[in-house]
Amino acid sequence: MSGRFIGIGVGPGDPELVTVKAVKAIKNLDVIVCPEARDGKGSFAFDIAKGYIPENVKILTLAFPMVHNRDVMEAAWKKNAKIIEKEVKAGQNVGFLTLGDPTVYSTYMYILPYLDTNIPVETIPGVTSFCTVAASQNLPLVLWEESFGVVPLKKGGAAVEKALDVYDNVVIMKPSHDARVLAEILESRSLADKFVLISKCSTDEQQVSTDIKTLKEGSVPYLSTLVVKRKGLK
Amino acid sequence: MSGRFIGIGVGPGDPELVTVKAVKAIKNLDVIVCPEARDGKGSFAFDIAKGYIPENVKILTLAFPMVHNRDVMEAAWKKNAKIIEKEVKAGQNVGFLTLGDPTVYSTYMYILPYLDTNIPVETIPGVTSFCTVAASQNLPLVLWEESFGVVPLKKGGAAVEKALDVYDNVVIMKPSHDARVLAEILESRSLADKFVLISKCSTDEQQVSTDIKTLKEGSVPYLSTLVVKRKGLK
Repeated sequence: MSGRFIGIGVGPGDPELVTVKAVKAIKNLDVIVCPEARDGKGSFAFDIAKGYIPENVKILTLAFPMVHNRDVMEAAWKKNAKIIEKEVKAGQNVGFLTLGDPTVYSTYMYILPYLDTNIPVETIPGVTSFCTVAASQNLPLVLWEESFGVVPLKKGGAAVEKALDVYDNVVIMKPSHDARVLAEILESRSLADKFVLISKCSTDEQQVSTDIKTLKEGSVPYLSTLVVKRKGLK
Repeated sequence: MSGRFIGIGVGPGDPELVTVKAVKAIKNLDVIVCPEARDGKGSFAFDIAKGYIPENVKILTLAFPMVHNRDVMEAAWKKNAKIIEKEVKAGQNVGFLTLGDPTVYSTYMYILPYLDTNIPVETIPGVTSFCTVAASQNLPLVLWEESFGVVPLKKGGAAVEKALDVYDNVVIMKPSHDARVLAEILESRSLADKFVLISKCSTDEQQVSTDIKTLKEGSVPYLSTLVVKRKGLK
């Protein structure tokens, strides 16, 4: 009998912010894919889930190069999909743990188009970092008839500027990419006191800053999320 | 000793999509606030959490009128905050269950500004409906350097149009508000085959449609979420 391939959101960092469904699925895994990239993202997801992972699980370390050459990345997705397929067809339940939610910026999603369509696939949603950041401050991300946008910070910040033009509430993912440019954007729009930056939200290492200096000094950790509220934080 | 006031996200509908943290918090509640509004939203959150709620919990039914007069609503928030405050000060753990995540369009957030600042408040994030909708289709909500926006559908759909101008991926909340107008917007932008509409996602009553007719007929249930992917669903 065939196993299944399951994308599992493990939430933002606190092992208790994993869902009951994800815990059950993890306890039932035979194989866990451990994506290897420069950023070590995969291993943090593994750390979060550690307490739920069966002892005799097989770890399948797969390389997912994060490069600007799409062909190189596609070749890796294709190759990794075949490896996963082989395990599932041999009856194994193969899990891919993703930080936060699997539908929001996860490597897991790149594999799916390359899998044999006969492979049973399930995606278990998780708690996102941006909801956790807002919750940690008892702050609404969005109220009433407001809208919000989620954008990754790219060098130069054009996408961030566009989002700030349109929305009252903007979540900026990966603010570490170019924190100084982000500081300039926020200052130029009189938003220097209307954001909260949180790193490793919901973990023991959580750091919170509402000080523009943190961005200016460019010392923002990798696993950070920034929420801008144009109407202010209160 | 004082109790606490806890906003608890119970996720989109499947009781297994509640987090371990939320389950623990619910099991520890003395009082549960049951918001009463025309839409019955509060009772669905209660249904999701039912299996985790202690037997002898006190149900505090509070009216939250959803009207266009802000003064009427504010008076209710203030009045309800005082009732909650009294329970917490008497040592009770008071929980406010919210569908999905408490930071995304929840009534819970309206109460917080009116609570005595000495009241301990905690917000436990939850899985959003929009992540669940995307996950149920094994579909990425957002990839790579893409952005996404979340907008509630208002009569006329101007906010939706603005979001579709800017983003590749747009989540439209409450598409039941004016499904026919939404159908027109999607058709005029050649997006009639690039959306998925899901009602009561992750429950036994889940309905999925990718057919523009469902919107045109205007028979979209209240608890629905629509995801538009400009690049298509595959």
